[in-house]
Amino acid sequence: MDISDEVEAASAGSRRAIGRLLTRVERGERDLEALIHPRNQAQIIGLTGAPGVGKSTITGHLAARLARRGRVAVMAIDPSSPVSGGAILGDRIRMDSVLGEADVFIRSMATRGSEGGLSAAAPAAFRLLDAIGFDVIIVETVGVGQVEVDIAAAADTTVVVVTPGWGDAIQANKAGLLEVADVFVINKADRPGASDTRRDLELMLDLTATNDHSWRAPIVATIGTSAEGIEELIGAIDEHDTALEAQDLRGQRRRARTLLEVRSRVGLVVESRLDAALETEQISARIDSVAADGGDTLALVDALTELLFGFSDP
Amino acid sequence: MDISDEVEAASAGSRRAIGRLLTRVERGERDLEALIHPRNQAQIIGLTGAPGVGKSTITGHLAARLARRGRVAVMAIDPSSPVSGGAILGDRIRMDSVLGEADVFIRSMATRGSEGGLSAAAPAAFRLLDAIGFDVIIVETVGVGQVEVDIAAAADTTVVVVTPGWGDAIQANKAGLLEVADVFVINKADRPGASDTRRDLELMLDLTATNDHSWRAPIVATIGTSAEGIEELIGAIDEHDTALEAQDLRGQRRRARTLLEVRSRVGLVVESRLDAALETEQISARIDSVAADGGDTLALVDALTELLFGFSDP
Repeated sequence: MDISDEVEAASAGSRRAIGRLLTRVERGERDLEALIHPRNQAQIIGLTGAPGVGKSTITGHLAARLARRGRVAVMAIDPSSPVSGGAILGDRIRMDSVLGEADVFIRSMATRGSEGGLSAAAPAAFRLLDAIGFDVIIVETVGVGQVEVDIAAAADTTVVVVTPGWGDAIQANKAGLLEVADVFVINKADRPGASDTRRDLELMLDLTATNDHSWRAPIVATIGTSAEGIEELIGAIDEHDTALEAQDLRGQRRRARTLLEVRSRVGLVVESRLDAALETEQISARIDSVAADGGDTLALVDALTELLFGFSDP
Repeated sequence: MDISDEVEAASAGSRRAIGRLLTRVERGERDLEALIHPRNQAQIIGLTGAPGVGKSTITGHLAARLARRGRVAVMAIDPSSPVSGGAILGDRIRMDSVLGEADVFIRSMATRGSEGGLSAAAPAAFRLLDAIGFDVIIVETVGVGQVEVDIAAAADTTVVVVTPGWGDAIQANKAGLLEVADVFVINKADRPGASDTRRDLELMLDLTATNDHSWRAPIVATIGTSAEGIEELIGAIDEHDTALEAQDLRGQRRRARTLLEVRSRVGLVVESRLDAALETEQISARIDSVAADGGDTLALVDALTELLFGFSDP
């Protein structure tokens, strides 16, 4: 099937066609680019938080409910190990168990050792999914590590999930999640400490005026296992969406996604040139010598940038 | 004080001089480079794991005991938020409370929004600390996010800390921690599930033959609050150190650190050029247009690499 047929089939809802197009996007295939005509209409929801807070369950509930309104895609970004390769199935199973009969397209994207590749591919995947007619795109990332946080933060609305327990809100703050949150979720809110966590979050919100607009992130309590609080969460997301619209900030979020992609792609081009250079005999020998004798590392860096780009940093 | 005096004072043990030199290293100051003569004698121990597993407490215990053998430095790498800036004090307080009277030099390094800067500065800091006479350097990083894992993995011996509880070993695997571990610690081993976690780890070790040498990571149970298991952990680290030595692999670890630093520094140079380009009126307008109308992102990337480096990726 040629690409334009594939785009047509994907727009008509073929899961296999969508999957194949996303694979092309992940590979950064150029000929797809001319065929994508973004509608700029999909609502992109980012969902992030530490491992084990219940992101997949919340994502599943959100997706199932939002699927009543329109076409929903879920992108699960998985910081899976470069060696073991694929995604661990646990999250996917948890998500499936709450999705039930809902018609939701789910795709896992793994880092596979190249985080640059991920932050290039994710915004490109959003563009594709928007272009072929999805109304809602939920992107779920582990909220530790700059790349994962960047991707969730480039959504229209970013939801940060924490759980009760001493230090959890503080850990979220440390990971830089506080300032990217448009909405907070305290999941497993039936556990002890939920009200302390809420108080911690409120306090931290009081202390930091960080948002790019006059929005204060609301805090929603959920219990993932029983879907409690999911409707309230959807309400908070919708409210943020309305605020974005009212303040004409949706274009700003879109620009952030473009910037993320452009930066990452430039980085990937540089990385592949650098990889090749590092494997040449000349450079490799020089690295050996610096590593063994403690030669001048900065001079080696200069030599490399001179060789690769024709400039060195004084 | 001029730099060579500062190096002398630092070698003699002045904490303030060490601190000031590390600041120079973090800034990438060139004139320091010529004054550092690595001894290649410090033992570098990396300690990593998810937030909340008790890394700081374990680090504190390790540092206190190893300080009986020689000069110990701790580098706490903190993925603190670029907005809120500094490190949260909690970890430091936990570490101090177990250090007691031990003479240990502690330094926090924060990402401050530039993870590239961190993976450039950390290996350079190890070089400095080795050069001025430290015998043991413990580097503690949050084990989620490629940069943090890379830094811990570039140590001579990498310790991965997990806690009991379903999924924790699986999360560690997902984060890519399994294949960088030379030693596993199950901390809070008095909690329910510790034996399950051990079994999961053993199983995963059976399934993946990943190490660069014939070493199988031992699993040590600890209870951070009571220092139980710390002597056993030190034993495991020493054993790994002996194995490295016997197989002549210490140089390989040193080369990995040099590569990490060189790659990161080249990345930083590129990043600063890219930042400048992205702020020019011409490029900025093009990003606006691509973001708004869905123009060709890959063509924009080509234009950027052509402008910056004189090449584009076909």
